[in-house]
Amino acid sequence: MEKRKIILDCDPGHDDAIAIMLAGKSPYVDLLGITVVAGNQTIEKTVRNALNVCQHLNIDVPVHGGCGQPMIRHRQMIADDIHGKTGLDGPIFEELTRRAEDKHGVNYIIDTLMESDGDITVVTTGPMTNLAMAMRMEPRIIPKIQEIVLMGGSMGLGNVTPAAEFNIIADADAAFVCFTSGRPITMMGLDVTRKVLCVPQVVERMDKIKNKASQLFVDLMRHFNKSQKEVFGWEGGPLHDPVTIAYLIDPSVVTLKAMNTEIDIRSTSSYGRTNCEFFNYNKKEANSNVAVDIDVEKFWDIIEQGIRNYQ
Amino acid sequence: MEKRKIILDCDPGHDDAIAIMLAGKSPYVDLLGITVVAGNQTIEKTVRNALNVCQHLNIDVPVHGGCGQPMIRHRQMIADDIHGKTGLDGPIFEELTRRAEDKHGVNYIIDTLMESDGDITVVTTGPMTNLAMAMRMEPRIIPKIQEIVLMGGSMGLGNVTPAAEFNIIADADAAFVCFTSGRPITMMGLDVTRKVLCVPQVVERMDKIKNKASQLFVDLMRHFNKSQKEVFGWEGGPLHDPVTIAYLIDPSVVTLKAMNTEIDIRSTSSYGRTNCEFFNYNKKEANSNVAVDIDVEKFWDIIEQGIRNYQ
Amino acid sequence: MEKRKIILDCDPGHDDAIAIMLAGKSPYVDLLGITVVAGNQTIEKTVRNALNVCQHLNIDVPVHGGCGQPMIRHRQMIADDIHGKTGLDGPIFEELTRRAEDKHGVNYIIDTLMESDGDITVVTTGPMTNLAMAMRMEPRIIPKIQEIVLMGGSMGLGNVTPAAEFNIIADADAAFVCFTSGRPITMMGLDVTRKVLCVPQVVERMDKIKNKASQLFVDLMRHFNKSQKEVFGWEGGPLHDPVTIAYLIDPSVVTLKAMNTEIDIRSTSSYGRTNCEFFNYNKKEANSNVAVDIDVEKFWDIIEQGIRNYQ
Amino acid sequence: MEKRKIILDCDPGHDDAIAIMLAGKSPYVDLLGITVVAGNQTIEKTVRNALNVCQHLNIDVPVHGGCGQPMIRHRQMIADDIHGKTGLDGPIFEELTRRAEDKHGVNYIIDTLMESDGDITVVTTGPMTNLAMAMRMEPRIIPKIQEIVLMGGSMGLGNVTPAAEFNIIADADAAFVCFTSGRPITMMGLDVTRKVLCVPQVVERMDKIKNKASQLFVDLMRHFNKSQKEVFGWEGGPLHDPVTIAYLIDPSVVTLKAMNTEIDIRSTSSYGRTNCEFFNYNKKEANSNVAVDIDVEKFWDIIEQGIRNYQ
Repeated sequence: MEKRKIILDCDPGHDDAIAIMLAGKSPYVDLLGITVVAGNQTIEKTVRNALNVCQHLNIDVPVHGGCGQPMIRHRQMIADDIHGKTGLDGPIFEELTRRAEDKHGVNYIIDTLMESDGDITVVTTGPMTNLAMAMRMEPRIIPKIQEIVLMGGSMGLGNVTPAAEFNIIADADAAFVCFTSGRPITMMGLDVTRKVLCVPQVVERMDKIKNKASQLFVDLMRHFNKSQKEVFGWEGGPLHDPVTIAYLIDPSVVTLKAMNTEIDIRSTSSYGRTNCEFFNYNKKEANSNVAVDIDVEKFWDIIEQGIRNYQ
Repeated sequence: MEKRKIILDCDPGHDDAIAIMLAGKSPYVDLLGITVVAGNQTIEKTVRNALNVCQHLNIDVPVHGGCGQPMIRHRQMIADDIHGKTGLDGPIFEELTRRAEDKHGVNYIIDTLMESDGDITVVTTGPMTNLAMAMRMEPRIIPKIQEIVLMGGSMGLGNVTPAAEFNIIADADAAFVCFTSGRPITMMGLDVTRKVLCVPQVVERMDKIKNKASQLFVDLMRHFNKSQKEVFGWEGGPLHDPVTIAYLIDPSVVTLKAMNTEIDIRSTSSYGRTNCEFFNYNKKEANSNVAVDIDVEKFWDIIEQGIRNYQ
Repeated sequence: MEKRKIILDCDPGHDDAIAIMLAGKSPYVDLLGITVVAGNQTIEKTVRNALNVCQHLNIDVPVHGGCGQPMIRHRQMIADDIHGKTGLDGPIFEELTRRAEDKHGVNYIIDTLMESDGDITVVTTGPMTNLAMAMRMEPRIIPKIQEIVLMGGSMGLGNVTPAAEFNIIADADAAFVCFTSGRPITMMGLDVTRKVLCVPQVVERMDKIKNKASQLFVDLMRHFNKSQKEVFGWEGGPLHDPVTIAYLIDPSVVTLKAMNTEIDIRSTSSYGRTNCEFFNYNKKEANSNVAVDIDVEKFWDIIEQGIRNYQ
Repeated sequence: MEKRKIILDCDPGHDDAIAIMLAGKSPYVDLLGITVVAGNQTIEKTVRNALNVCQHLNIDVPVHGGCGQPMIRHRQMIADDIHGKTGLDGPIFEELTRRAEDKHGVNYIIDTLMESDGDITVVTTGPMTNLAMAMRMEPRIIPKIQEIVLMGGSMGLGNVTPAAEFNIIADADAAFVCFTSGRPITMMGLDVTRKVLCVPQVVERMDKIKNKASQLFVDLMRHFNKSQKEVFGWEGGPLHDPVTIAYLIDPSVVTLKAMNTEIDIRSTSSYGRTNCEFFNYNKKEANSNVAVDIDVEKFWDIIEQGIRNYQ
């Protein structure tokens, strides 16, 4: 069995933390390194959170801090209403001794891809700033990318504005760069991630595993579910980011449809919309694979196995 | 029982024709007049279609031709892929002897509202050009409007672009005028109209009524379903426009939610999007009632009764 | 000598008042009627001002009130910093006995053009709302228009925003309709109107004529110059609107250049910019004649003669 | 006398070459390094051109290649109609032995500024991509920048579109980042650079100096003037870029006015406009110093002295 080599670019964030957990010990995934971006919280906090998760779960990969701001817009958007003051409210971590690498996340992405044989997938579970910046600094990395797998966007309703989802609106310009790069890009949007609600029964199921990972899962989800309920009224929070890793572990977990996706970066009220030609009324060439359905049972099985891998 | 006085502004169109049918003999609706706009076909054809339907079903109301073009954009969008060359392909009508009134639809709306006691609802089942033009020519009509009920828009995916629905994108500027008018506005968007698919069983059910209206219904739907299948792949066409009249006959047929809706008129790729704050993440004041669900059984019962009214 | 038949659509406004004066008794111009729009002040005030000027100067033409709001945007922009509380601060008029006609300005434009032989020029010295609304209500008037002559726009700096001039930004959507109508359109923008500054020597020159028109000119300009100085720092106010009429009296007063002009209606910060392809770097087909220079001496001679016509 | 320390970020380009020449031996300027960006030609060619100029004039500074593409838009705009196939058509250079440094221009800007005492001015004479990318990768450089001096933009007419000037439209998003950085920014736009036309008399004057720099100047300008004439119809090409260095040598050569400048990045037809609040009708806080006039004689004296410095 061939492991998928990945760079995980994230902004932890509760669901990012579960994505790291899922990738960290999977026999299907070779996690080369983690790059961090501002998003769910400021860059200082998201870097700290990534390090905390890695240290806590003993995941031995380099962590590189990246961009703390969107490419163009000068005000940063964070999601502290969902992820709390630290960006990872809930669990209590031991004293942090792990350190981020000196090399900037953008330079790490460039160097790693340039040295590769074109067999690395870049997974983004936050704003796509780091990857887009890397593409613009060194365009020769583009043909080296095997696939881009992102959590972000929505064919239907957004979650920050009616038009746009958080990871995209937080840096739609960066998303535009990635979606126009010409590389295979697979989008896990709200259309599927809203179907994997981490309801209390799921939390109980994972709680029974009784290892360090399950405990972290439970601590994270209790906070996450509480804030999702307050903001969106749901009984369980949608476990957005891990869908990317679940797909790499077992592609059959989602149903993909090839279609044209255009990021709206020239609008005011619809800035950040992922205009996905689901019906393709306009006969546009596909530039992306968009997840249109998810096997919810299979997804939770993958999560459970991901947690059990820590035993 | 009080009848709801309405002006029906439409662009027939197969589903507009059913909306006229439903309003024409309803004991709950007082159809004062019909104004016509370009949309599903050119203004010459949509006027002719409205007259044909009224003559065929012996609906005795004045028909006024209105605007043949959107307010601002200079190219008109039509939907001949769905509604055919005439805009109402399918049925064969007798020779047309009915004539449209001389008065322009916009002036008819202005005069009728100015003379009213504020008890008239304007129903639009096409681009909102006529109503918006009337509001701008004579702003004193605005407080005279009891309610605007429209078929148009989408909280989720559009049907012309991923962002926008046909009636709105065909004249988003006009929709902007209506949604910012401050009057009660009730939106029947694709989110509900896509649930009332006129599948073969529905056509068969109505066919059994065996009157002039049921025959017209069947003739219209056979063409409509065929083209919807070709364009969107559905087994039955969504009966968009009649949802407006069904709601006036029995408001309980849809579930409404008050929310802020903003029409995007300053975007290129998302032009015409109805940005409906379903989650109201941005705490905006509601300016519209948006249909979020529909009782499909009740809807078909209303349609059946509407057809039976012609006996 | 053939007189040019015109409809003057205006929003008086000090410089509009001088435009009315210039057209009112010119042997070169046949002023068929005046339509009024909101702009320099609200519609109630601009109608009143147009009537006051006509009554005061004994100009016997029908005055029709028109639109009080831009076509799409719902907030109206006025220029009371320049034109004062009444929109025509400065002169004291006798009690107003003239009345505006009952027919709406938009319907007047439609009816007058439809009955014409295609020999009427429409001059707009305010936002272009009335003309654009007429074109959209009745597109058959478009080929009937001989020429559109407008004061508005700027190839260079605007005067409301850096991008846009007042008459255009006040209803850029209407301007877009007019510039895409396909009819000959001649634009007198800030590029030339800023060269005809009504400095004190000009006021003194006209004051010497000593008739009712010269007195009105002086009363108007004293207020106008004062507010232009306060807002823009100039010693004399630019006599924008009369350039349109001066051009009809003697076309040689301005230098025109055929070029493509596109009105920006889909921007936020540049809304209302007249993008005039002066260099035509982009090889676009000309759709307008834009005034690029003006013979200042000849202009003031035309103004003087226009005032003397009242003797 | 204190020398101004500068990094010169450029895209040679004929006028960039003169800017390098002017900075290379000036007793008022300490040219720390050159970073290169795509613009007048592709990055491979502009790097080569920068090296050629430095080698030819024996200017001993490091040259770093930078970004070959705008930050967001994926199609690059070049100006080969003006600068020719090589980007520096005209002169014949010796065989190139100089090499660009390994370090990426963006990383060079970051490292140089981070190690500085806040006394470095960044001069950009091409699209602002490199500087903006550096600001986003490492925001801590921002307070280290003493001043940004750019050639770009226009208060009036653009030269690529009616709205926009080449250096800005080629990467308006990057310009937006720089203009919203909060650092002192001084803009030399077309409003002044179009006044320093390198007419034949100027070329003759410089030709008389008879050194290697004057010969290069003459060779460059003969091509530049020819293409400017073909494209814009001028007798002499506007010597845009050297105005930045001339200002650092003698600030009195231009008249500056503090004003708010906003880069339009959310428009289609006005993308890249520098909306400069010259009149400040909207009472916005100044964020830039914009050159509103230039002392043409003084400018050519500075150029002559710059050439003579090579003796």
